[in-house]
Amino acid sequence: MSKQFDVIVIGAGPGGYIAAIRAAQLGFQVACIDEWTNAAGGAAPGGTCTNVGCIPSKALLQSSEHFDHANHHFAEHGISTGAVKMDVAKMIARKDNVVKQNNDGILYLFKKNKVSFFHGRGSFVKAVEGGYEIKVAGKAEETLVGKQVIVATGSNARSLPSVPFDEVNVLSNDGALRVGAVPKKLAVIGSGVIGLEMGSVWRRLGADVTILEGLPTFLGAVDEQIAKEAKKAFDKQGLKIELGVKVGEIKSLKKGVSIAYTNAKGEEVKLDADKLIVSIGRVPNTNGLNVEAVGLQLDERGAILVDGDCKTNLPGVWAVGDVVRGPMLAHKAEEEGVAVAERIAGQHGHVNFNTIPWVIYTSPEIAWVGRTEQQLKADGVKYKAGSFPFLANGRARALGDTTGMVKFLADAATDEILGVHIVGPMASELIAEAVVAMEFRASAEDIARICHAHPSLSEATKEAALAVDKRTLNF
Amino acid sequence: MSKQFDVIVIGAGPGGYIAAIRAAQLGFQVACIDEWTNAAGGAAPGGTCTNVGCIPSKALLQSSEHFDHANHHFAEHGISTGAVKMDVAKMIARKDNVVKQNNDGILYLFKKNKVSFFHGRGSFVKAVEGGYEIKVAGKAEETLVGKQVIVATGSNARSLPSVPFDEVNVLSNDGALRVGAVPKKLAVIGSGVIGLEMGSVWRRLGADVTILEGLPTFLGAVDEQIAKEAKKAFDKQGLKIELGVKVGEIKSLKKGVSIAYTNAKGEEVKLDADKLIVSIGRVPNTNGLNVEAVGLQLDERGAILVDGDCKTNLPGVWAVGDVVRGPMLAHKAEEEGVAVAERIAGQHGHVNFNTIPWVIYTSPEIAWVGRTEQQLKADGVKYKAGSFPFLANGRARALGDTTGMVKFLADAATDEILGVHIVGPMASELIAEAVVAMEFRASAEDIARICHAHPSLSEATKEAALAVDKRTLNF
Repeated sequence: MSKQFDVIVIGAGPGGYIAAIRAAQLGFQVACIDEWTNAAGGAAPGGTCTNVGCIPSKALLQSSEHFDHANHHFAEHGISTGAVKMDVAKMIARKDNVVKQNNDGILYLFKKNKVSFFHGRGSFVKAVEGGYEIKVAGKAEETLVGKQVIVATGSNARSLPSVPFDEVNVLSNDGALRVGAVPKKLAVIGSGVIGLEMGSVWRRLGADVTILEGLPTFLGAVDEQIAKEAKKAFDKQGLKIELGVKVGEIKSLKKGVSIAYTNAKGEEVKLDADKLIVSIGRVPNTNGLNVEAVGLQLDERGAILVDGDCKTNLPGVWAVGDVVRGPMLAHKAEEEGVAVAERIAGQHGHVNFNTIPWVIYTSPEIAWVGRTEQQLKADGVKYKAGSFPFLANGRARALGDTTGMVKFLADAATDEILGVHIVGPMASELIAEAVVAMEFRASAEDIARICHAHPSLSEATKEAALAVDKRTLNF
Repeated sequence: MSKQFDVIVIGAGPGGYIAAIRAAQLGFQVACIDEWTNAAGGAAPGGTCTNVGCIPSKALLQSSEHFDHANHHFAEHGISTGAVKMDVAKMIARKDNVVKQNNDGILYLFKKNKVSFFHGRGSFVKAVEGGYEIKVAGKAEETLVGKQVIVATGSNARSLPSVPFDEVNVLSNDGALRVGAVPKKLAVIGSGVIGLEMGSVWRRLGADVTILEGLPTFLGAVDEQIAKEAKKAFDKQGLKIELGVKVGEIKSLKKGVSIAYTNAKGEEVKLDADKLIVSIGRVPNTNGLNVEAVGLQLDERGAILVDGDCKTNLPGVWAVGDVVRGPMLAHKAEEEGVAVAERIAGQHGHVNFNTIPWVIYTSPEIAWVGRTEQQLKADGVKYKAGSFPFLANGRARALGDTTGMVKFLADAATDEILGVHIVGPMASELIAEAVVAMEFRASAEDIARICHAHPSLSEATKEAALAVDKRTLNF
C-alpha cells in the first residue's frame, strides 16, 4: 500500500527542505523527496545551493581569499612566508567536506523534525481521492500519497544552444566547482553570478581569466554606480571583462576549447582557453516531474505557473523557489517554503518581494535591497541619493580593505528608504540592517540617527544615510 | 584680541571632533582644541580611540589574525607556506600608518567643514560677557572666547595605586600598542576590553599570556551564557584567565616585572612576566582643564556632572563622551556630540541609551545591545530566550569559523526584543541589524519573518529570533 502523508515536498533544496521542516513543525505528516547523490552514492539534500552553488562557492572563495592575502597583503602587515602554494585537490576536498556537513545537517534536521526523507526522483503519477499519488524512483522505489504537494525542484544551468556541458572543458556551475588544477587560461561566457564568483576564485589562484558578456553594460541588474565601482575593482584584480561581445563558434581542442567572438568594436577575436565556464542564466527544472499526468500548468519559460501565494492551477499543489517566477535566490525559496507551509496550516505566511536582499559573493562583495537608481528613474520616482566610501571608514582602513561604498536611495518627499546598495567588504552581512530598515519603512534619517558601533563597517551605512541629507560626518 | 567663536570644543576625540563638525554644519563658527601630538610633533586629533584605542587595536588584531590563519588554518585550505614570521616593527608601522590616515582624515574634515583647529591644551580661564574665555597652551598660545563650550576631554587609563605606568614594563593601552617585540611572557591585570584585545594579539603572535581578574566572574557586563562561550574560545586559544585573584606586590625586575597574587583557591602565586598590561578601567580626564576657574561641577568619580542632555551646571557649557557618566564608548560620545550641537542650534538631538551597541573586538568578537539575561532577572522582567549556534550556519562553515552564537531575549508577553547578544565571527557588524530592530521596537517574530541573505552569518540572527518561539529551521 502507498504511504500516506499530509504534505509531500518534491526537492530538498533551500525551498523544499525548509518547507518540509516548517510543515512538520506545524503538525503535519511530511515527506520530502530528493535525488541528489554524493560521490559515495548517499543522499545529498540541499539542492543546487548546498551542492553546487552558494555553499561550495563560498568555501572556495574563502580559500582563494586566504591565498590572495598571503601573496599580496601579508607583507604590509609584516608577515613573511616562504613560497605560497595552493594544493587544489586539498582545497576542493575541504569544499566537499563543507558541502557534506551541510548535507548531513539537513538529514539530521529531517530526523529531528520527523520528516520522512526519500532518496530518489519524485514525480506525479495521478490525482487521487483527496490528494496526489507521487512516485519515488531511486534506490528504493516507493509510492506515496499526499494531500498537499509542494514542488521545489529548482533550476538547471542554461547551456549554449550548440555547446552542451561536458563538465570537463565546458563547465556549468557544477563543473566549475570541481576543476582539479588551476587552469592557465579560463574563459567565462556570461557575467552571471557564478561566472563572476568562479572567475574570481581561479583568477586569485593564478588563472588568466576572460569574461565575455553579450550585453553592453556590466551587471545590468546592479545599481549602475555600484556596478562601475565593482568593475574597477575587478579590473584591478586582472579579471578581463569584455562587454558587448557576440559569441560565435566554440570548438573543442585537444586540450580545452577555442572560442570565436566579435568584440564590441566589431573585430573578430579567437580565444583559446583550457576551460570554459558558461554562466548565462538558469532554467526552471521540471525534468521528469511528469506534470502532464496531473495537468500542472507551466508558463512560457517552463516555470510552474503560480500566483502570489505560490498556488498552482491544481488544488493542493504548490510550487516554490527557482522553479517558479521571481529571483532565483536561495533565501527567496526559503521564504516561499515557510509561507506555503503556513498557508497549508491556515496561517497567513507572507513574502515581501520588495525587501529580498541580493548578494554577489565576489571580492569585493556586492549586495543590495530595493530599487536601483536606474529603476527609480524608469519608474518616475523622485529620489535623493547619498553614498559613503569605505575609504573614509576607520574599520575598513584597519582591515586593509577600503574598496567600495554604501549608497542610499530615499524618496525625495518622504525620505523613505527605497534602496540600499553596497559594494565592499562584508556587503553580504551589512545588507541585513538595510533589509530590516526597509521592512519597517524607515527613513534615511532614521538610520542616520541610530547609533552604530565604532569602529565598524556598518558606520558606512549610517554615513551613507547621512549623505542623503548632505551631512556626512566623516567625509 | 581674543578670537571669538560660537562654539568651542575642547578635545578632538570621537565626541569632540564630531560635535565640532556637526556644529559647523549647523552654521556656527567653531573652534576645536586638541593637544594630542604624533611622533613628528604634529597634531594627532582623534583622541584615545584613534591614537591608542579602537583603531590601532583593530589594525593589530587584523595583522595577528592573518598570522594566526597562516599558522593554523591555511593547511586545511590546501595552502602551504614556508616558515611564517612576523616582523613586529613592520606590524606596528602599519598600525601607525592606519592611525595617521585617521588623524589626517580628521584634519581634512575640519578644513572641509571650516572648523578652526588649535593644537594645544584647552582650559577654562574665566566666564566673560556672553561666554567663556578659553586658553590654548601649546605650540601657538591663543586665547579664544566662545559663546558655548563643549568639553570632550575623554578619559585616561586607571593605574594600580602603587604601580604607575612606565609604558616600558608596566603598560596602559598606550604602551600595549607599542610593544616592540613579542613578549615571551605577558601578564594582564584586569579583563577589561583593551587587556583582552591586546592579550589576544600577543597570544596569537606567540606570547604566553596570563590574565588576572579580581572578580569571580569573567566579563561580568556580558550576558553570562555569551561570556561562558567566549571564555571557552579564549581557553582554547591558550589565553590563561585566572578569576577571583587578589593582586599583591608588583616588583620591577632587571627585565620585566614580578607579580605576587593570591589565586581563587587562596594559594600564593608569583608570576614573572616580560610585560604587564594594566587594564582595570578608565577615569574621566579633567587634568589641566581648570574647572575651578569657572566653577564647573564634577561628580564623586571626577566626571563632569551633566544631565540627560549633557548640560553642565554652567549655562552654555556642555560635556560629552568619556568625561561624563555613561558607557565609555566612542560611538556613545559621537551620538552625544551630535545631539549637543543640535541642541545648541535649538534642535532636539537625542541619544537612546537603551540601544547603544557594545563591542569587544577579541577573536571571537563579542557584541550586544539591550539587556542581558542577568539584568532582566534582576529587573524582574519576564522574558523568553532563543539562541542559535554558528556551528549550524552555512556561511560560518564555509568561512571555517563556527565559534559562538547569537542570542535573543524578548519580552514574554509582547515578544518585544529586549536584548541581542552575539559572540562569534563579525559580531561587531551583525549587531547593527539588532540595534535598528530595537530602535523600531521590533518583536523577535519580526526578525524571524524578515528575509536574510543566504548564505550569510546574519541568518544566525534570524534563526535566534525563531528560537525565541522554539521554531528554528536549521537547528
